[in-house]
Amino acid sequence: MIRSKFPPKSKWKSLSQRPSASSASLESDVRGILERVAQRGDSALLELTEKYDGVSLNTIAISEEEIFDSESKVSAELKGAIQLAKGNIEAFHRSQVLKEERVETVPGVSCWREARAIERVGLYVPGGSAPLFSTVLMLGVPAVLAGCSDIILCTPPDANGNVNPIILYCAKLLGIRKVFKVGGAQAIAALAYGTESIPAVSKIFGPGNSYVTKAKELVQEKGVAIDMPAGPSEVLVIADSTAVPEFVASDLLSQAEHGPDSQVLLLSDSNRVIAEVLEEIDRQLPTLKRRAIAEMALNASRVIQFENIEQCLQFSNYYAPEHLIIASENAEEYVPLVQNAGSVFLGNYSCESAGDYASGTNHTLPTNGFAKAYSGVSVDSFIKKITFQNISARGIKEIGPAIETMAKAELLDGHANAVTVRLKSLSNV
Amino acid sequence: MIRSKFPPKSKWKSLSQRPSASSASLESDVRGILERVAQRGDSALLELTEKYDGVSLNTIAISEEEIFDSESKVSAELKGAIQLAKGNIEAFHRSQVLKEERVETVPGVSCWREARAIERVGLYVPGGSAPLFSTVLMLGVPAVLAGCSDIILCTPPDANGNVNPIILYCAKLLGIRKVFKVGGAQAIAALAYGTESIPAVSKIFGPGNSYVTKAKELVQEKGVAIDMPAGPSEVLVIADSTAVPEFVASDLLSQAEHGPDSQVLLLSDSNRVIAEVLEEIDRQLPTLKRRAIAEMALNASRVIQFENIEQCLQFSNYYAPEHLIIASENAEEYVPLVQNAGSVFLGNYSCESAGDYASGTNHTLPTNGFAKAYSGVSVDSFIKKITFQNISARGIKEIGPAIETMAKAELLDGHANAVTVRLKSLSNV
Repeated sequence: MIRSKFPPKSKWKSLSQRPSASSASLESDVRGILERVAQRGDSALLELTEKYDGVSLNTIAISEEEIFDSESKVSAELKGAIQLAKGNIEAFHRSQVLKEERVETVPGVSCWREARAIERVGLYVPGGSAPLFSTVLMLGVPAVLAGCSDIILCTPPDANGNVNPIILYCAKLLGIRKVFKVGGAQAIAALAYGTESIPAVSKIFGPGNSYVTKAKELVQEKGVAIDMPAGPSEVLVIADSTAVPEFVASDLLSQAEHGPDSQVLLLSDSNRVIAEVLEEIDRQLPTLKRRAIAEMALNASRVIQFENIEQCLQFSNYYAPEHLIIASENAEEYVPLVQNAGSVFLGNYSCESAGDYASGTNHTLPTNGFAKAYSGVSVDSFIKKITFQNISARGIKEIGPAIETMAKAELLDGHANAVTVRLKSLSNV
Repeated sequence: MIRSKFPPKSKWKSLSQRPSASSASLESDVRGILERVAQRGDSALLELTEKYDGVSLNTIAISEEEIFDSESKVSAELKGAIQLAKGNIEAFHRSQVLKEERVETVPGVSCWREARAIERVGLYVPGGSAPLFSTVLMLGVPAVLAGCSDIILCTPPDANGNVNPIILYCAKLLGIRKVFKVGGAQAIAALAYGTESIPAVSKIFGPGNSYVTKAKELVQEKGVAIDMPAGPSEVLVIADSTAVPEFVASDLLSQAEHGPDSQVLLLSDSNRVIAEVLEEIDRQLPTLKRRAIAEMALNASRVIQFENIEQCLQFSNYYAPEHLIIASENAEEYVPLVQNAGSVFLGNYSCESAGDYASGTNHTLPTNGFAKAYSGVSVDSFIKKITFQNISARGIKEIGPAIETMAKAELLDGHANAVTVRLKSLSNV
């Protein structure tokens, strides 16, 4: 890890730099894929699956039977764990379903908002080396709670043309019945434009590789909503003298094992804690299966010493981490100082992996500094709020003259006239 | 207006078509502007202002003095109207500031969300033929209520290099002190990348012409958040036999006067109402100052007769209008059937211009069918919600084993290990 001590603010920009990943050919490759799917639908999906996933399928659809049969292929222990996680994610996300009150802004003018589900949403679940079934829960639970009527799940097939049964089991648990074996940019294209099998959706969710990310970016330009822009995963840990170095090291390593471009930062006001965490990393690293990946990520990672924890938080707000761990017995005291972060883990027992899987919070979070403007996925991501207003005769008399004056000042006399005809009709009564 | 009667669902797609505006040269023009501003900052802004606004400025900054002096240049009547509108917009938007409760998902696992303002936001207010000062209120009020610490307002200068005092007066009322005379794609570039005078912001809000819209689209790709994608303004009116044809006609015309590409739709189950509304349009149109524009918009607009109001609402949900007026004495009964719309106006006295100016709701709304996935601007647009969790020793014992099991099934043993080290330390106590 690269160490800095008391960096001045002028250095913060370079200390916050994330790797930029996009290659020159990526965009044109992805545009090609999008076009092919837009023009030729399912047959393009089958060809692209053969090309990119190396498997020739007859159909991308997964039958309801296959979804139901998945249950027998998952161990009882894992099913129990998934059910516990699902229950907690439901409990937390259910608290996000709020009903708002009517506001009478002036007598006779009643305004309010009501939430409506986005009817048709697409969830993308990456495949690759591991079956990331936790993403099914993190996207599917809020979609179901929001009341989305049509939930389409796409995930790539493995080399044998199958989808991991754990992913199907999670879909089954949530009542998701439209699951398709298709991945990469071609899955995003199908969700954006629709094909014979896959209906076009209004919003696309989920993480993915650089093809998926670029495809989401490009379909967003065409008006399909996406959950948020993406970048490599990251954690920033602030550890004070009450932190447990063994725990902090395990948290940094759990982030580092994600990928060679994972961002890992340790901030502390204590030289001793930093030294002990680094020792612990050296001790724990060799025990990890993905140690080669973790080592690459750690080599590019940073340890920064500051004068005090307030300065650590200032830097953290500047960096705007996806995950922020405040490893301190007094972590709750620092909550008001957190301005920019995706999800915050307080105290010595709140490890990031708790939020990744089972505490109840969502793990789909803004990376790359996007936490300055974006929230993580929640029920809010699956609804829109519609404003309603009901204005009575008394109400239009109260605000009508102001509307006429403002509309005329904006040179829009048709807008004024819509009030004038109403006020006139009322003065005639 | 183009009339249809009882169109089958197979025709709905073509009946919902919006005009597509983008020209081939637009994107390369806008990319050129963005690059110029990114590279040469303020001096590029001054050159581009000379080129596009036809005025040579020494500085784009507006002094605090100029902002304060604006007050004396606005009529007392207009100031009163603006103050009434501001009060109503504040009252409604204040109701959107909510505090969420903590949820204990299992004993010892406490999760919650807290809102934080997006610190630095940019508001774009179009100039052109009319000073759209109402946009200052609609973007500025929620930004102030959210607690954004840095609010930057950009608006183009007129041919004499001035900004309309009504716009400055609205900024003054809201406490916005950073106002710049710059418009078009160059303003969006400045807000996205920052220049010597204008700080880079995390999110950009506001309507604009095709240059502004394209620039927002392009900077969004670079990770700057925007309020929503844009298209021409639109209203869909559903009128039943209790509607007042004179009022309905005035509402259709108030939308039509926006621009030649404004979308105006009238849906009804009553032949009589349709005929009377069309007559009223012919009667009112000649009285409007912007009748030439309104006429062009009306020529491309649609009147559709359905069997009943439920079918009208089905079509409306399919179309997803920016503004929906339910011109009926029984309008509130139909609220549960509204699935996709930006803002809904209920009853015979709720004209769209009320929501455009003074009832309290926001007028920055999703057009072009985006209401299927997007909400209008609200306080929510100026905040992000951060999740927090505090897990106790008891809490990690409750959920730890499930996390270990799930992490191992995703082949992420570093994630499991972060729990294991904590559980081990607790079993040793």
